Amino acid sequence: MDSQRPLILISNDDGHLAKGINQLVSFLKDMADIIVVAPDGPRSGMAAAITSQLSVTVSLVSQAEGVTIYKCSGTPVDCVKLALETVVNRQPDLVIGGINHGDNSAVNVHYSGTMGVVLEGCMKGIPSIGFSVCDHDPDLDFTPTRPYIRRIVGQVLEKGLPKETCLNVNFPQHAPYKGVKACRQTRGRWGNEWASIPHPRGGGNLYWLTGNFANHEPESTDTDRWALDHGYVSITPTQIDMTAYPLLEELKGWEF
Amino acid sequence: MDSQRPLILISNDDGHLAKGINQLVSFLKDMADIIVVAPDGPRSGMAAAITSQLSVTVSLVSQAEGVTIYKCSGTPVDCVKLALETVVNRQPDLVIGGINHGDNSAVNVHYSGTMGVVLEGCMKGIPSIGFSVCDHDPDLDFTPTRPYIRRIVGQVLEKGLPKETCLNVNFPQHAPYKGVKACRQTRGRWGNEWASIPHPRGGGNLYWLTGNFANHEPESTDTDRWALDHGYVSITPTQIDMTAYPLLEELKGWEF
Repeated sequence: MDSQRPLILISNDDGHLAKGINQLVSFLKDMADIIVVAPDGPRSGMAAAITSQLSVTVSLVSQAEGVTIYKCSGTPVDCVKLALETVVNRQPDLVIGGINHGDNSAVNVHYSGTMGVVLEGCMKGIPSIGFSVCDHDPDLDFTPTRPYIRRIVGQVLEKGLPKETCLNVNFPQHAPYKGVKACRQTRGRWGNEWASIPHPRGGGNLYWLTGNFANHEPESTDTDRWALDHGYVSITPTQIDMTAYPLLEELKGWEF
Repeated sequence: MDSQRPLILISNDDGHLAKGINQLVSFLKDMADIIVVAPDGPRSGMAAAITSQLSVTVSLVSQAEGVTIYKCSGTPVDCVKLALETVVNRQPDLVIGGINHGDNSAVNVHYSGTMGVVLEGCMKGIPSIGFSVCDHDPDLDFTPTRPYIRRIVGQVLEKGLPKETCLNVNFPQHAPYKGVKACRQTRGRWGNEWASIPHPRGGGNLYWLTGNFANHEPESTDTDRWALDHGYVSITPTQIDMTAYPLLEELKGWEF
């Protein structure tokens, strides 16, 4: 590979065959050398899970024109950890998760395997970005995201990101987009989360996750859900430090 | 059940048979009615993963003296979601994850299934606490944690916790403890994360997660790692909002 070009490490949670990740590669391959290390199948909703009990494997899928693709039997986070320690021969300039088929705004950041990739890259000291579209269609037309992704990637390659801080970028379901908004994470809650049928063999139910997200602050115009609901691309800067500083001060007065 | 008593929902990531969760139940059962909905086997490192592709089941294990135990085929977060929607008949006063066999301080909060339980309870608007001991011994003596856990649970039942804020409590490996410190999450990074052997059938390696945590600020005395390294029980208040507010302001000046 031409070591003068930036190196971008890409993973996702939909697997290396998903349309979203392959579209992302095609959007960026003239800007950088690209290494993909992605799960060998779907890993949606895996958050920052790691494989702690079993072994994992990684194997080469293809290599051509500055794009090298590996598949991995582990979680999205495993992919990043394995890539950084066993696959790449220099530190990537950027880690990207996506393009995810589905919304990772608001509290979804906690469940998202895409954002697992991004948090892991960020924890390793590399500028990291997640891209997601609010649509689960496996054959989605990602074309409208292309100029936005290229601009955001270009800006981050140029400016970097602060330590222990990454970007969670979401696209509305429908294009054209009205523009880009830097947002905070929306407060809200998933509810009505289970569909069920009686187990065919008796003895209880089988449950499937489903549900609706309730935005607890629909009037606030500075949230990622507001931006997405109103046709804007949302960029939610996201940090590794989850300390609740206001409570930290208060706790010092509690009696333990 | 006596509806005058508080109701505590307990889960973990080591499974309903682990010593830690059963010790926790025994420490608290005179203080509250207890419902356990815990994974049917080990789910360490599952973070806030959800089961998005397959169905899950939940079934009664035992019921006696105010303690009802269910096992669930899903992730730690699935356990909490299923418990709240299909098992409990009133809103729990508290959700607890643990007692985990292993350290969940510093960046481990992102990988921890125990903290997945806690974040989920918190996202559902219920005061939530994670308890972990920095020791993986499956037969660990949890006795020294008992008075601390009872005091912390008692205080949270009495005072509640701020919205979208939970507690991540870790105990040092060795007792007696020097006391309790309210802390912030330590900055640091896992490294040397993979052990490998050649695959017995050839064609590559099998990789197992391992590694060492490097504390990037060992001199800071206000972090959870410092507290644990110096014999104190650490309480790290933890929040759902991961927005990086300092970068949010800066991003408004970027050109997208």
